[in-house]
Amino acid sequence: MTEDVQHAPTGRRTRGGADARRALRGSIEVKQAGYIRRKMKPYEPFSDEQLELIEHNAETVLQETGIDFYDDVEAVQMWRDAGADVKASDTDPLRSRIRFPRGLVRSLIKTAPREYVQYARNPANNVVIGGNNTVFAPVYGPPFIRNLDEGRRYATIEDFRNFAKLVYMSPSLHHAGGTLCEPVDIPVAKRHLDMIYSHIKYSDKPFMASVTAGERSDDSVKMAEMVFGKDFVDQNCVMTSLINANSPMVWDGVMLGALKVLARANQACVISPFIVAGAMSPVTSVGTLTQILAEASVGIAFTQLCRPGAPVVFGTFASSMSMQSGAPTFGTPEPALVLFGAAQLARRMGVPFRSGGALCGSKVPDAQAAYESANTLWPTLMGGVNFCLHSAGWLEGGLSSGYEKLIMDADQLTMFQAFAEGLDFSENGQAMDAIREVGPGAHYLGCNHTQKNFENAFWRSSLADNNSFEQWQEDGQKDIVVRANAKWKQMLNDYVAPPLDEGIDEQLQAFMAKRKEVLPDNVS
Amino acid sequence: MTEDVQHAPTGRRTRGGADARRALRGSIEVKQAGYIRRKMKPYEPFSDEQLELIEHNAETVLQETGIDFYDDVEAVQMWRDAGADVKASDTDPLRSRIRFPRGLVRSLIKTAPREYVQYARNPANNVVIGGNNTVFAPVYGPPFIRNLDEGRRYATIEDFRNFAKLVYMSPSLHHAGGTLCEPVDIPVAKRHLDMIYSHIKYSDKPFMASVTAGERSDDSVKMAEMVFGKDFVDQNCVMTSLINANSPMVWDGVMLGALKVLARANQACVISPFIVAGAMSPVTSVGTLTQILAEASVGIAFTQLCRPGAPVVFGTFASSMSMQSGAPTFGTPEPALVLFGAAQLARRMGVPFRSGGALCGSKVPDAQAAYESANTLWPTLMGGVNFCLHSAGWLEGGLSSGYEKLIMDADQLTMFQAFAEGLDFSENGQAMDAIREVGPGAHYLGCNHTQKNFENAFWRSSLADNNSFEQWQEDGQKDIVVRANAKWKQMLNDYVAPPLDEGIDEQLQAFMAKRKEVLPDNVS
Repeated sequence: MTEDVQHAPTGRRTRGGADARRALRGSIEVKQAGYIRRKMKPYEPFSDEQLELIEHNAETVLQETGIDFYDDVEAVQMWRDAGADVKASDTDPLRSRIRFPRGLVRSLIKTAPREYVQYARNPANNVVIGGNNTVFAPVYGPPFIRNLDEGRRYATIEDFRNFAKLVYMSPSLHHAGGTLCEPVDIPVAKRHLDMIYSHIKYSDKPFMASVTAGERSDDSVKMAEMVFGKDFVDQNCVMTSLINANSPMVWDGVMLGALKVLARANQACVISPFIVAGAMSPVTSVGTLTQILAEASVGIAFTQLCRPGAPVVFGTFASSMSMQSGAPTFGTPEPALVLFGAAQLARRMGVPFRSGGALCGSKVPDAQAAYESANTLWPTLMGGVNFCLHSAGWLEGGLSSGYEKLIMDADQLTMFQAFAEGLDFSENGQAMDAIREVGPGAHYLGCNHTQKNFENAFWRSSLADNNSFEQWQEDGQKDIVVRANAKWKQMLNDYVAPPLDEGIDEQLQAFMAKRKEVLPDNVS
Repeated sequence: MTEDVQHAPTGRRTRGGADARRALRGSIEVKQAGYIRRKMKPYEPFSDEQLELIEHNAETVLQETGIDFYDDVEAVQMWRDAGADVKASDTDPLRSRIRFPRGLVRSLIKTAPREYVQYARNPANNVVIGGNNTVFAPVYGPPFIRNLDEGRRYATIEDFRNFAKLVYMSPSLHHAGGTLCEPVDIPVAKRHLDMIYSHIKYSDKPFMASVTAGERSDDSVKMAEMVFGKDFVDQNCVMTSLINANSPMVWDGVMLGALKVLARANQACVISPFIVAGAMSPVTSVGTLTQILAEASVGIAFTQLCRPGAPVVFGTFASSMSMQSGAPTFGTPEPALVLFGAAQLARRMGVPFRSGGALCGSKVPDAQAAYESANTLWPTLMGGVNFCLHSAGWLEGGLSSGYEKLIMDADQLTMFQAFAEGLDFSENGQAMDAIREVGPGAHYLGCNHTQKNFENAFWRSSLADNNSFEQWQEDGQKDIVVRANAKWKQMLNDYVAPPLDEGIDEQLQAFMAKRKEVLPDNVS
């Protein structure tokens, strides 16, 4: 598989009029950066010997301690059939402890692809997940939103649509993500329909399936089939979705239900232990890595039991814990070290890796938020993360999706995209002619080499103020949050939806209406 | 030389009463972290072949284009004696173009030490510059200060003293630095005396000499001799000082004057091309690295002409340029790449490396400032910088020293110090007993391993708010700048000066008074 796959999904039916209209729009056409093909090698601080120790210990955990499977009889039987040792709980009929002979889990993982293409309904936005690539996806999951005008409040479907539009218009966000915020104004059992529809309607980037119940994953697959075609979906990945372990060492029925639907449909699962170290894993980082590897390996192997060859991602989300409040803390060194270690373990396993993001504990998009976000984004890029959720918009430990924070983070992501290009050692990059031409004591501003290269020589922030102090004062002494506030409003004002075939749109809306008739209003 | 040198300088005369008083102070004793001994290898993205190309090109620049020496007849003669090709300018009698036979500069550098100890008047604060060590020093040079109460205004000696005290009380700042801000209320020709005195009086960390004129460097050496003893200073480094090249490719009389005094006194010079790429160097990064290497090599070699074996640091300060305003920009990817490349070049040369810092263009300590600062601090640590100026307090492209920014950055530096410790692969770090004890579905909060390790398991920010949203609201919804404002005021309130021998203090004050009598009030 080449790294530059840009095939049109066979099911993409938008043609003719819509394309023509889009071509006419000209200046409001959304420019996309394309996912990152890193030209810089990842930072790999840990030795083979150290990583082998963690792998050995994880196998010991799987063999001796085991993993619990909860509320999924079928999954337990599948493990029994695969050769694992299953022991039903004496006290809880829904729970089984599964122990794995050394090497069993590893051998199952061998059918997982090293990288895969996730198709978007606009083929220009297809992404390759794995290898030297990094794909940025936005914040996932918060029940609240925050913006400068309203402060913090519960999120609505209107917010969800706004975030979908802003992500669509942000070139550094290569992926539309999933639960951009929880639209709490729609019943829990129905809101996945509106979220999937919004991703399809308001964006043409790749997106994520609902995973809060097996049937919601199934709805996601059905809606994707309307866009891409049933056969295409069966043979290709059109959704990459988040499957969290219930740490420590439990896989529960909800996540397993979604995993089974998605893996059997050949859709990618991001198998992610979600860890607050010291509570859900050992308080030491090597112990945490061991547990992460054990939990993730079992989830990854289970996708291959469901459908050998189904795309799957080694994920991890680890935070440290505040000694004062017990709250997760972000931008701290221990999770950064865990990220670097887990990335090396994933590469040794031969599957794509998910971690990182613009994570922070700050309630507001202040300098705390920015330091903490950067402290995770640097390890994200330098560790060689392939799929990065929460790359933009995350606030308050994931409780709020921030409008301004989304804009600020997305701007920073363009910096990392430029960094990943590395240095140009060509003759033009070496600039020996320029040095000869200018010489001691002169300046390079007007020389040929500068004129030829200036336009693209330096990354430019779209939000940073680099004017003189006096100019900044004259402009109203705006800090970055005020500037970001103006920017997202301008973007929403300028937004034009990407074309969507009317027939597909009608089919999606009819499906949603039918499903909403049967789904309850009062289920969590 | 071992990495943990903590010898008392022989000239440190503070004894008896002062030490006893300090021992009694107990709770207000300032805890210092000690400089960073990195346990993680540096990130080295560039290949030997790529670095050899830059080295080859730099030799070509030195051989064919040459470097101008300005306003220093003695320096030109030293190069002529060393075998360089000297050509006087036709138009400017003070200027000479010097060309260097291939290999000459490299061969002179061989006498420079790979690392050196800089002694502090408190031997617990001695630092080793070079090797796997990172030493953080604060902001250097701004004429303005900014704080939340007063906004931006010109700096005074009172500000300088405040910053000296805050740096002294910040464990993550291993070095007191130099021009913490310009005390513009004191005449230019005299203020170096007050700055050096303040560093000695209000702190006991290692500090920098004045370099704005040869005689000011000489005053710095004389004052250091009063503290450390004349013989000790001649045999040991007690000051590490900043010598900027006048890019492109000029060394001027002011900097050469300071360099000669300091190198001959066996004091360390940080030889730093100060570059806004596109104006003072080629607009491409490999070209910029080539010029940096050429300029720095000549400066480093010149210190060895002055005194073979004198400690010297390969420094670089590179920024990119705003296409709009021509202003330097910070936290951008190109200078980060230059930093990684220059760090590799310095290690190949076998001398310590200076770069990085908490650099930003933002006028205020907002999220722009924090993102930009983090975007330089990560390369600083991961590139393996040995001496980092501007590690804390820098605002507005170096025009302002920020009170709150200093506190915020110093807090972040403690994060990097913890990160540099790497992972603990001991049996305790592996935590296999904890995983066995807790098992699936339980939690680690109360287990033996957690209780034994909890105190030191996670780095803690002294400024981040990790409380619940409700608690944060109740506490007044303070952002990090408000919290930092309260912190520096508390620190200044709690400050107690480190003991200084009264005889030395009197000697220093008498020297300053005598010098101020002869120095003019109206010289720049």
